[in-house]
Amino acid sequence: MDAAEFRRRGKEMVDYVADYLENIEKRQVYPDVEPGYLRSLIPEEAPEEAESYEDVVKDIERVIMPGVTHWHSPYFYAYFPTAHSFPAMLADMLCGAIGCIGFSWGTASEATLIALLAARSKIVKLIQADHPDRSETDIISKLVAYSSDQAHSSVERAGLIGGVRMKKMPTDSKFSVRGAALQKVLEEDRAAGLIPFFFCATLGTTPSCAFDCITELGPICNAEKIWMHIDAAYAGSAFICPEFRPLLNGVEFADSFNFNPHKWLLVNFDCSAMWVKKRSDIIGAFKMEPLYLKHDHQESGNQSHWQIPLGRRFRSLKMWFVFRMYGLKGLQAYIRKHVGLAKEFETLVRADQRFEISADVVLGLVCFRFKGSNELNETLLKRINRARKIHLVPCQLAGKFVLRFAVCARTTESRHVQEAWSHISHLASELLQELPH
Amino acid sequence: MDAAEFRRRGKEMVDYVADYLENIEKRQVYPDVEPGYLRSLIPEEAPEEAESYEDVVKDIERVIMPGVTHWHSPYFYAYFPTAHSFPAMLADMLCGAIGCIGFSWGTASEATLIALLAARSKIVKLIQADHPDRSETDIISKLVAYSSDQAHSSVERAGLIGGVRMKKMPTDSKFSVRGAALQKVLEEDRAAGLIPFFFCATLGTTPSCAFDCITELGPICNAEKIWMHIDAAYAGSAFICPEFRPLLNGVEFADSFNFNPHKWLLVNFDCSAMWVKKRSDIIGAFKMEPLYLKHDHQESGNQSHWQIPLGRRFRSLKMWFVFRMYGLKGLQAYIRKHVGLAKEFETLVRADQRFEISADVVLGLVCFRFKGSNELNETLLKRINRARKIHLVPCQLAGKFVLRFAVCARTTESRHVQEAWSHISHLASELLQELPH
Repeated sequence: MDAAEFRRRGKEMVDYVADYLENIEKRQVYPDVEPGYLRSLIPEEAPEEAESYEDVVKDIERVIMPGVTHWHSPYFYAYFPTAHSFPAMLADMLCGAIGCIGFSWGTASEATLIALLAARSKIVKLIQADHPDRSETDIISKLVAYSSDQAHSSVERAGLIGGVRMKKMPTDSKFSVRGAALQKVLEEDRAAGLIPFFFCATLGTTPSCAFDCITELGPICNAEKIWMHIDAAYAGSAFICPEFRPLLNGVEFADSFNFNPHKWLLVNFDCSAMWVKKRSDIIGAFKMEPLYLKHDHQESGNQSHWQIPLGRRFRSLKMWFVFRMYGLKGLQAYIRKHVGLAKEFETLVRADQRFEISADVVLGLVCFRFKGSNELNETLLKRINRARKIHLVPCQLAGKFVLRFAVCARTTESRHVQEAWSHISHLASELLQELPH
Repeated sequence: MDAAEFRRRGKEMVDYVADYLENIEKRQVYPDVEPGYLRSLIPEEAPEEAESYEDVVKDIERVIMPGVTHWHSPYFYAYFPTAHSFPAMLADMLCGAIGCIGFSWGTASEATLIALLAARSKIVKLIQADHPDRSETDIISKLVAYSSDQAHSSVERAGLIGGVRMKKMPTDSKFSVRGAALQKVLEEDRAAGLIPFFFCATLGTTPSCAFDCITELGPICNAEKIWMHIDAAYAGSAFICPEFRPLLNGVEFADSFNFNPHKWLLVNFDCSAMWVKKRSDIIGAFKMEPLYLKHDHQESGNQSHWQIPLGRRFRSLKMWFVFRMYGLKGLQAYIRKHVGLAKEFETLVRADQRFEISADVVLGLVCFRFKGSNELNETLLKRINRARKIHLVPCQLAGKFVLRFAVCARTTESRHVQEAWSHISHLASELLQELPH
């Protein structure tokens, strides 16, 4: 769908929304369906080929509406209100178009925290089963969690919030945590009387898109009863392409896995998808049952027990639209195009003797730098960002200040990448000319 | 704005969005403005009178766009991508219109947790300042937090996540926590060697819209160095009306305060507003500074340190649209209309000798029940919800099963309330006729 078709479809959707709201009181306020009703109405798998928008729209009344509780019906008197107004909807359309991230990029942070808390709750129960006399606070005071020294800051924050020790593991020359490193620290920590309970592996780190070696780490975690959570916030989307699936080898050892379709799968922010191997581990950690939340289908899995906020927006709707209207093939083509653009940029950098590539280019991120001091690279980045033509952020890799070139926009084409490189190269030349030789 | 105007404005917005995205590469990718640039461009206060949509739209380019980092520009290569597509935007329009809550009503839960974690971090630092030898885990194991026995389940969950004891305080005949009750439990707990550190007061509880007596509780919390958080998730919106402001007396004692504009202030889900008295208390509890998040304005307050996820959607945009297009007067009228409808329903219930009102009707919630057994009331509720005409949920008050009638929809009018009552009354008559006398 291009902008021209969006103009047409968007206006149709405005009319559909207005019709829906003008006639909402004619709809039955509370649905008749049973949990699981959707299963027979939708295919088992996301479509291989893109579907037409007409087919998607037809399914709104056939598939979605029969399951909706109409919170904005004047016959809805349950809970408390949830607000709704036309100006707010108009603002949300604009918000979706701007699609900026409040500050950074989000809710994988919550998934890591949830996994850590579930793991904490599980280990406490496990130890108390053998030692009923040990208090929860005593056990928690001995717990230790691990992540890569390349892991996202939210992992450290999860430890801080969960009130547990969090140790950063050293990485190898490719910025990956290896099994031997984990084995070593586990032995030391157990000898010191600590209780290892959680390892957050990263597939596609933020600084350099590095991959922790989960085929080595997973078996160790499983053997030692350590919860392995995988944070694949960015890289996770790429696993829809068979050629990137080997990067996911070892996922079978994970207790939980998370990636953000709102990063690289064409689903506007926010939308973060989390899997848990054993549902009861996570439900048990958060379960609360006040009367006003009781309903007839408790046992089919109330997902408000799976997270910190009770409420969620109807986020799956946008995934459903996107999966159908791109199809697996369209989504794969999108991922491959971005990876191709990153490779194109890498080639440009490698052809320039003044620069070096700082980490393997696996997906859509290129880490590069001037062959020279950190100060020089910091100055170059400052000038790039001050010029306002393109926008980059840096990272630190093995003590070096590195520039990150992440292919981000849906509309990025080869010409933009070429233009970006010639801009960087020009600023680099200017900077080098100013230096004393 | 009615549905007819929404049709027109929605289509204009669709064109604006398409124009924005078709021409995004002509915009400077990263803004030139300094933090605070907005201050001189917008008025100090929300408008008293509603403004026209034209005036709001004019300000998009004047006020908003100069501050936007265009994440979807093909010149944006920073961080990682945030996804974006036309189908996802169409789905989001529909999502906004349906405006249902995933399961329940949300993010006040996060505010309570954040407040509790900040309070936990503060008390640990305070105690360690005097006793540097006491470990964090030792202190946490002695902490105790309090809330009303009427408080939302998310409060108990916050204690569970934070790994601290959480005690539920008894309430008086109006379901409010009073100062004397808190004083008593504090003395007992201190005598037992515990460290009271957090009290979550509720203004407008979920079961009955009761108000904890913060004029009594606040001074005790302040004197005892206990963090007082106020959860006014639902009732908070009503404080824009002077006649409801006395319910807020004592707020000056609070360390933090939260309400959900997404409940009762016409701002679509999700949008939860939190105030903290001392900014450093909350920043200190969560601060992390990886290089890729460093920027030139660290000290002006990076709000990603104020919450669990790093990222946030551009939620203030919808508040801004709503405040301007309703004006203070329009919003007040909306709150008063809902309260009036609840009073109207209360009058209908009181006029029927078979029923009783179970709690004071202060805002838009009416708690009522059959004069009879809990079983009878459960059956009545089941029949009401099975008939699918209206939707209600129950609560428990002083051991009694009670029906909650919450005025929710923006479009609820007197006729809907009258209809709902005659429906309930009819089902009640049917039920009573079936009973042996």
